[in-house]
Amino acid sequence: MTPQGAQDPEDPQSERPGRIMSREMAEQPEVLRRILDEGAPRIRETARKVAERAPRFVLLTARGTSDHAALYAKYLLEVRLGLPCGLTSMSTITAYGARPDLKDVLAVTVSQSGGSPDLVASTQAAREAGAITLAVTNNPDSALAAVSEHHIDVLAGPEKALPATKTYTASLLALHLFVESLGDTGGTGDAGNSAVAAAAPLPDLAAGLLARQDEIKTLAARYRFAERMVITSRGYGYPTAKEAALKLMETSYIPALAYSGADLLHGPLAMVDNISPVIAVVTDGRGGEALQPVLDRLRGRGADLVVIGPRAQVEQASAGFVLPTDGVAEELQPILEIIPLQLLAYEVTIARGQDPDAPRALAKVTETR
Amino acid sequence: MTPQGAQDPEDPQSERPGRIMSREMAEQPEVLRRILDEGAPRIRETARKVAERAPRFVLLTARGTSDHAALYAKYLLEVRLGLPCGLTSMSTITAYGARPDLKDVLAVTVSQSGGSPDLVASTQAAREAGAITLAVTNNPDSALAAVSEHHIDVLAGPEKALPATKTYTASLLALHLFVESLGDTGGTGDAGNSAVAAAAPLPDLAAGLLARQDEIKTLAARYRFAERMVITSRGYGYPTAKEAALKLMETSYIPALAYSGADLLHGPLAMVDNISPVIAVVTDGRGGEALQPVLDRLRGRGADLVVIGPRAQVEQASAGFVLPTDGVAEELQPILEIIPLQLLAYEVTIARGQDPDAPRALAKVTETR
Repeated sequence: MTPQGAQDPEDPQSERPGRIMSREMAEQPEVLRRILDEGAPRIRETARKVAERAPRFVLLTARGTSDHAALYAKYLLEVRLGLPCGLTSMSTITAYGARPDLKDVLAVTVSQSGGSPDLVASTQAAREAGAITLAVTNNPDSALAAVSEHHIDVLAGPEKALPATKTYTASLLALHLFVESLGDTGGTGDAGNSAVAAAAPLPDLAAGLLARQDEIKTLAARYRFAERMVITSRGYGYPTAKEAALKLMETSYIPALAYSGADLLHGPLAMVDNISPVIAVVTDGRGGEALQPVLDRLRGRGADLVVIGPRAQVEQASAGFVLPTDGVAEELQPILEIIPLQLLAYEVTIARGQDPDAPRALAKVTETR
Repeated sequence: MTPQGAQDPEDPQSERPGRIMSREMAEQPEVLRRILDEGAPRIRETARKVAERAPRFVLLTARGTSDHAALYAKYLLEVRLGLPCGLTSMSTITAYGARPDLKDVLAVTVSQSGGSPDLVASTQAAREAGAITLAVTNNPDSALAAVSEHHIDVLAGPEKALPATKTYTASLLALHLFVESLGDTGGTGDAGNSAVAAAAPLPDLAAGLLARQDEIKTLAARYRFAERMVITSRGYGYPTAKEAALKLMETSYIPALAYSGADLLHGPLAMVDNISPVIAVVTDGRGGEALQPVLDRLRGRGADLVVIGPRAQVEQASAGFVLPTDGVAEELQPILEIIPLQLLAYEVTIARGQDPDAPRALAKVTETR
């Protein structure tokens, strides 16, 4: 993609562990800009066609990193549009042959590769059951795009590292533009236009975050010997917590448990003490406010608490990483707040002497059925 | 409740760690029998009233252990009745004030205590938004039961141990009878009757499992020094995997990660090696069949694999616990398969010198808002 990403056999850096993941993380500002410039008009057009069918309920289907993008879309659809949503339990269709009545249902399937056979099968089944089907993928030529009535290309370019990074932030932004445009009931295109305007600062802000990798390297030292981690958030930041946990697990193999702040108080808090570090993703807005009692409780227990969020929150924590949230709508913050956590997964893995590009046992397209 | 449960200050056993959890686990056969004998007619009547409103979608709301009961109900509703379902992201309502249109939506809230303010608030909001509301609780006098149009009492008697056990199996059975009765579109009551008949062997089978605590004590020795665990399943057994992980975490504080078999292949598998023990919950049926490739993959990686399931599966694993699955419909097996895992959480905690009745930091009614 970018010139510095090209592999040069003369360059000793080309054998550096994590170089593929590193390059793909670095591409994120450019990918976000591409979606805003080239993707937005097509996304708006797709949303217009879907809106004509007036869906009353949304089912979201995905696995792994894409499942966290789907969860982000679920929050957007429920909060911004008041559409009730569900995340599909895929085995009900693929293993048990359930054939629900999906009239008035929008079935959104999110998949980087668009190639997992179970996602293709469940999308096909949803379409046959009367759903309006939409695939959100990084591959317009995929089987998933082919079986879906509508398709959104997240335009991230080929992703080669096993830990997905740029396709995650790309999927979030594409889904955000889609949901905002879907809510444009007047059909004027205004909602789509203002969504693009609101997201316009994201590419530069993302570049600013990527430039602060040294701060993350310092934070990563903290987790060099961690045997487990807890990551918590609430509201729009919760998908970020889940994605950060997956990123840490699949690169560093540290068992990282993600909980919504409310769920953390229902049991897993027993596991948090001064040897279980906690990372809190604090969005600046209502989600962050709802997380406040959980943060107070964690501080009261003497937990090692690292905050990814606004400066005032970071200052009250054991350590943290300040996010630029001024002027960024709460629902757009997840597109930024995952970036330092991707870098953290990368740096912790390097610090532990492992290669973030080559997690054990994983294949890029997972052939679950 | 039972005479042997009464606290006798003269009895040295009354100070034994875990005695409350132990007593409540032991009550499960009696609770299941009570639901079949006394609860079933009322559950059937509730289902009849809900069916008259012909819900098209179901939203399930719960936290902690009850969330796993809700997930079990989601599988039942999707597979047995073809009703699309979603699990609520509660903060969309309580923190963000979302007000979705819930016409034709059945909103089921599951809560042992019926006392969490956020569950009461979100159920109230769902009712105001036009949903048919149903509370499934262990407390008919709770605020949650009061704000809901319909209520199912799971009849488990007071639960005092912090780790919920008998209210979990009670909620599963009550939800099972409800869903089967809801599907009785002819209104003859036949579906409800045959659900009761199918579940009739469960109390004795549960008693048989509880009598095998020594087998579990042997298994527990395996996890005395475990620093993490992975628990996997697929289909109907997946809620069991999630509940087992929560039970282990909140009693023993071992970080236990639950994944559907398909999700495990999408990242977390990198974390599984010969130092991360895996427990697989294998239901005898399509869920177990769909898990087969994951079991093969785990064995291929030399994972320490303990199977809770049918004999043939246990024999191929590193160790296990044989469940009596003959003549038990796949969708009823979760009511049994959690019992050895509750016992395991208990025994591992005792083996580690901790008290299962007194997890650090937890309150029985969690006051999340």
